[in-house]
Amino acid sequence: MSVAVIIYDRGMGRWEPNARGRLQQAAMDLFLERGFEQTTVTEIAERAGLTQRTFFRYFSDKREVLFAGSDTLRDLMVDALVSAPASAAPIDAVAASLQAAGAALQEGGEHPRRRQAVISANAELRERELIKLASLASALADALRRRGIADPAASLAAEAGIAVFRIAFARWIADPAQPDFPQVIRESLEELKAVTTGR
Amino acid sequence: MSVAVIIYDRGMGRWEPNARGRLQQAAMDLFLERGFEQTTVTEIAERAGLTQRTFFRYFSDKREVLFAGSDTLRDLMVDALVSAPASAAPIDAVAASLQAAGAALQEGGEHPRRRQAVISANAELRERELIKLASLASALADALRRRGIADPAASLAAEAGIAVFRIAFARWIADPAQPDFPQVIRESLEELKAVTTGR
Repeated sequence: MSVAVIIYDRGMGRWEPNARGRLQQAAMDLFLERGFEQTTVTEIAERAGLTQRTFFRYFSDKREVLFAGSDTLRDLMVDALVSAPASAAPIDAVAASLQAAGAALQEGGEHPRRRQAVISANAELRERELIKLASLASALADALRRRGIADPAASLAAEAGIAVFRIAFARWIADPAQPDFPQVIRESLEELKAVTTGR
Repeated sequence: MSVAVIIYDRGMGRWEPNARGRLQQAAMDLFLERGFEQTTVTEIAERAGLTQRTFFRYFSDKREVLFAGSDTLRDLMVDALVSAPASAAPIDAVAASLQAAGAALQEGGEHPRRRQAVISANAELRERELIKLASLASALADALRRRGIADPAASLAAEAGIAVFRIAFARWIADPAQPDFPQVIRESLEELKAVTTGR
């Protein structure tokens, strides 16, 4: 039940994909075919028709292929939170941030689901994802404090928001008939409201 | 901002403490004096006036001294959740579980604060704590589902509850003038309610 915190590389879908996109695609294919552990950087480069040297120009190791998008996602979420109207309540600013992330992941087509399958199959990757999500919550709490929201409201809104995001993501990828991730996020936020008020 | 998921060993405070309690006490003292990394099992055993062999009868390694109480805390929290009145809303069953954990940690005297200082100072321990808290949230969600609560309400109530617990714990240990951890938990739950309803 972790979340795809990698952003779709817009280069990936073009007819002449770039080296980065080709490496990502090759790595994901191999991770899914053979498992993350069993895949080497040499094999990823070969499958992409590139050299190992090129691989290391883009990624520090094979795990980085899965997590390179985390910082981009965090920046996108923080930007959305910062750009919410000054009058927005903390939870609504967080909601705007989750919506932005949801829309970005949805644009990734099959990538978030494929990535999630790789991560779910490996304990070390699940832990890494958990840590990334915790730092995402910290970044949102920081951004809320910069909006003048005091603690504990800032931390609570950020942590609750990330919990909603994880749960909505799991629901979204579990149901291929539900194409609208931002919609699942909205519903999950409503559910959280209902749950915390004791319904 | 992680949480002391170790329960005070009742043996620790007696005049004739048992080996386990003496080892825990010695380990915590050394971790705080020298740092977790710099402390060896040999030193812990020596400080406790016991042998290495005895240490390994109680703990698999020095990290285990910090996390051995996690399972006890989880069981205590699940028990409290299961024992909540059948009519209790999911968030109220979770609240009962958090109260039970808060009371248990408070009984630990200085131990939770000392443990937290050790964990905060070490990245690997912070990650381990994060993983323990995530599995605690899973255990609470499982227990809610066994009460007949469907998802996503079960997951949301459990995840939100653990977020409240972490934040309340951080507030409690940051303020030595506030001795009442269960009270901080109650306030934080009220704050969460206010935050999610957009106040």
